[in-house]
Amino acid sequence: MASKPGIPKGTRDFSPVEMAKRNYIFDTIRSVYALYGFQQIETPAMENLSTLMGKYGEEGDKLLFKILNSGNFMAGVEFDELQEGQTNKLAARFCEKGLRYDLTVPFARYVVQHRDELTLPFKRYQIQPVWRADRPQKGRYREFYQCDADVVGSDSLLNEVELIQIIDTVFSKFGIRVCIKMNNRKILTGIAEIIGAADKIVDITVAIDKLDKIGLENVNTELAACGIAQEAIDKLQPIICMKGNNDEKLAVMRETLSESEIGLKGIDECFFVLKTLEKLALRNQVELDLTLARGLNYYTGCIFEVKALDVEIGSITGGGRYDNLTGIFGMPGLSGVGISFGADRIFDVLNQLDLYPEETGVGTDLMFVNFGEREAAFSLAAMTKIRMAGIRCEIFPDSAKMKKQMSYANARNIPFVAIVGEDEMKEGKIMLKDMVKGEQRLVTPEELISCVKS
Amino acid sequence: MASKPGIPKGTRDFSPVEMAKRNYIFDTIRSVYALYGFQQIETPAMENLSTLMGKYGEEGDKLLFKILNSGNFMAGVEFDELQEGQTNKLAARFCEKGLRYDLTVPFARYVVQHRDELTLPFKRYQIQPVWRADRPQKGRYREFYQCDADVVGSDSLLNEVELIQIIDTVFSKFGIRVCIKMNNRKILTGIAEIIGAADKIVDITVAIDKLDKIGLENVNTELAACGIAQEAIDKLQPIICMKGNNDEKLAVMRETLSESEIGLKGIDECFFVLKTLEKLALRNQVELDLTLARGLNYYTGCIFEVKALDVEIGSITGGGRYDNLTGIFGMPGLSGVGISFGADRIFDVLNQLDLYPEETGVGTDLMFVNFGEREAAFSLAAMTKIRMAGIRCEIFPDSAKMKKQMSYANARNIPFVAIVGEDEMKEGKIMLKDMVKGEQRLVTPEELISCVKS
Repeated sequence: MASKPGIPKGTRDFSPVEMAKRNYIFDTIRSVYALYGFQQIETPAMENLSTLMGKYGEEGDKLLFKILNSGNFMAGVEFDELQEGQTNKLAARFCEKGLRYDLTVPFARYVVQHRDELTLPFKRYQIQPVWRADRPQKGRYREFYQCDADVVGSDSLLNEVELIQIIDTVFSKFGIRVCIKMNNRKILTGIAEIIGAADKIVDITVAIDKLDKIGLENVNTELAACGIAQEAIDKLQPIICMKGNNDEKLAVMRETLSESEIGLKGIDECFFVLKTLEKLALRNQVELDLTLARGLNYYTGCIFEVKALDVEIGSITGGGRYDNLTGIFGMPGLSGVGISFGADRIFDVLNQLDLYPEETGVGTDLMFVNFGEREAAFSLAAMTKIRMAGIRCEIFPDSAKMKKQMSYANARNIPFVAIVGEDEMKEGKIMLKDMVKGEQRLVTPEELISCVKS
Repeated sequence: MASKPGIPKGTRDFSPVEMAKRNYIFDTIRSVYALYGFQQIETPAMENLSTLMGKYGEEGDKLLFKILNSGNFMAGVEFDELQEGQTNKLAARFCEKGLRYDLTVPFARYVVQHRDELTLPFKRYQIQPVWRADRPQKGRYREFYQCDADVVGSDSLLNEVELIQIIDTVFSKFGIRVCIKMNNRKILTGIAEIIGAADKIVDITVAIDKLDKIGLENVNTELAACGIAQEAIDKLQPIICMKGNNDEKLAVMRETLSESEIGLKGIDECFFVLKTLEKLALRNQVELDLTLARGLNYYTGCIFEVKALDVEIGSITGGGRYDNLTGIFGMPGLSGVGISFGADRIFDVLNQLDLYPEETGVGTDLMFVNFGEREAAFSLAAMTKIRMAGIRCEIFPDSAKMKKQMSYANARNIPFVAIVGEDEMKEGKIMLKDMVKGEQRLVTPEELISCVKS
């Protein structure tokens, strides 16, 4: 036999068992998005490269999968260009389209393209695969799903509140205990302002984040090594050493940032979101975390990130507010805020904690054994009724040896097997075997339906 | 403002209303597949080109979307090759991967790759997009969904029976009246055998198909023009003029093909499938149609095609048996049979006949008007309870003018609006407005839940 065929590295096949688990994840997220009034859209896998290029930084451009123009892709390409051999330039000549890299840029493109049809605020969710030519490694794939919800066309912080409620509800449904971390880009801008080192914000948050591990002295040494002036480091001390609950943190921040208008605005935003959430009885904790910095060049207001409490894994959900998403496509002034669930990591967490509901694994409820043509005809007629009652059933298609049929039922984890032979047909009944208990009894088709359903 | 961004030709965005309709189609097909014991799998959008090339004929190879290798795709490509400028050859040097063209070849690849994990017979369904660089035209897209179900590893004709039951059930659920046409590749081979013109089968079926339109004489003239000998045309007469129900047709065929072993086998297969179906009370007619020829180079047994009775449109579902699907990947001797629903055409038919269930259009059930911070806080608390009851609700995020909020509710087709002002808060009640009836009344949150739910 020839060697087994394979699939491109970084991509995956999903078997029936994995699909059942993934559908459980997607269905849960989808149902919660719908409960909060979000509507689903889908965009094409391929976008024009002009839509995608330059939106994800230089590194992102390199990670785009580009699609060769169909037909004579060399047409019009001059011999000199080929000779030069500049791959970036040539790729742009050979390819007009690329696979989407995330759902955010296609969404921005969608909003601008369809602006005349949309009623604002527009609350959309989108669950589709994205593709990145990243180096594949454990837990990182070249094709993976994103599950995004965004609101555009509303500045209201109630959107932030509801998105955090959605996060809380989804993880409660999964049974995953999480900490929802929140920060605000304006607070980070405020910090940069008061210490006069706007370009050092990433270094500062990275250093502060190490406090527990390396201690205050080492944090300060690291800050100095990053080129931050001693005076600025001094000003940062209350923030670095900040402890306590969200209210206490906000009080320290308000003091430290009293000179920064934008910083105070960020504090007010966080305060409003946290106060409003307090009355809504979330099941998970929302924690103000000033070291949270995600996507600095992108977000402009509140930012969120979710950590699982019982599994060591990176962020499993993230999001935030961006004030100019559609500006890149010529439609400025539209504020947006969104979140994105990381389906692949949630899949791993649910597996590690064994949290899938029992019914996730069940496909077929009932299999009819096949003893031959007459018995099969009898079974098929009964099965028509049984399926009308919503029971998923199948007949073993060949009248193979009993042992083979039963091992198929076992391998498929089918909980009930129906046996129809000469005697059963005479009586118009069916022998129903409970594969878990190992018991069997003779029942009418109606009794069978109620047995299997319960 | 800059010119609107667009999407590649032949691709589509799906708006919330379209998505709701498409989800209705996919969910219906999915639920019926599951009722018959089929299990879902998914395969990656990208396959190795070695998996795809040569499987769809020369024309198909040209329609594959190829993905430029990431990094330096020119590496190792000799200058002579570039100079030659042979696009096919160069595409093969620049690209290792392509987008899947259908779900059948990836499924064959899947079965061979995972053969050690599979229990046969393997009944899988798969609902995913495919991509073809076809010339876009009305109703033909470069990205579209296929909804396939296949059984591999079983020769039993019960699989054909159940697949036809699935077709019947799905279209009954949609409320689309259809004719399910069936033929058998072995019958066509038999016809070719007895008239000694195996290479003319397509010409013959095309000509026979025109009988109603152009009359017997012209059909015979056309057959002669195709180079079919007079003797063969004479032998074909009973088949061309064949009329009546399936039994009568089979009787004529059995007579005409009495000399062809394979032809008789095809007749027996059709007979078994039709006889077995007779007892299963299908809601749509299954018609033996000897002019049905689809994919001659591919199928080896029964073939099916579904036509809508009340709309002029091409085939909306098709399928058949193929005896050597996995042979191309080095695993011979595995028979398969499958069907594929054409989601895009079904979408058009449901639209034309206006058959979508009423609830397909409803997203959010209830919108809270936003009068300000305090009212919003009161509303959010009530909404938490309301959502727990499964009601999809949202609050207008900004305390905008009433008129703006109400026109948003109207544009979104939201059937109920909740109004919470000073008076309502005092009483702990909510003013609920039925947007269809135009009535409003003051209710408790509990009463609101039962009102909206009914």
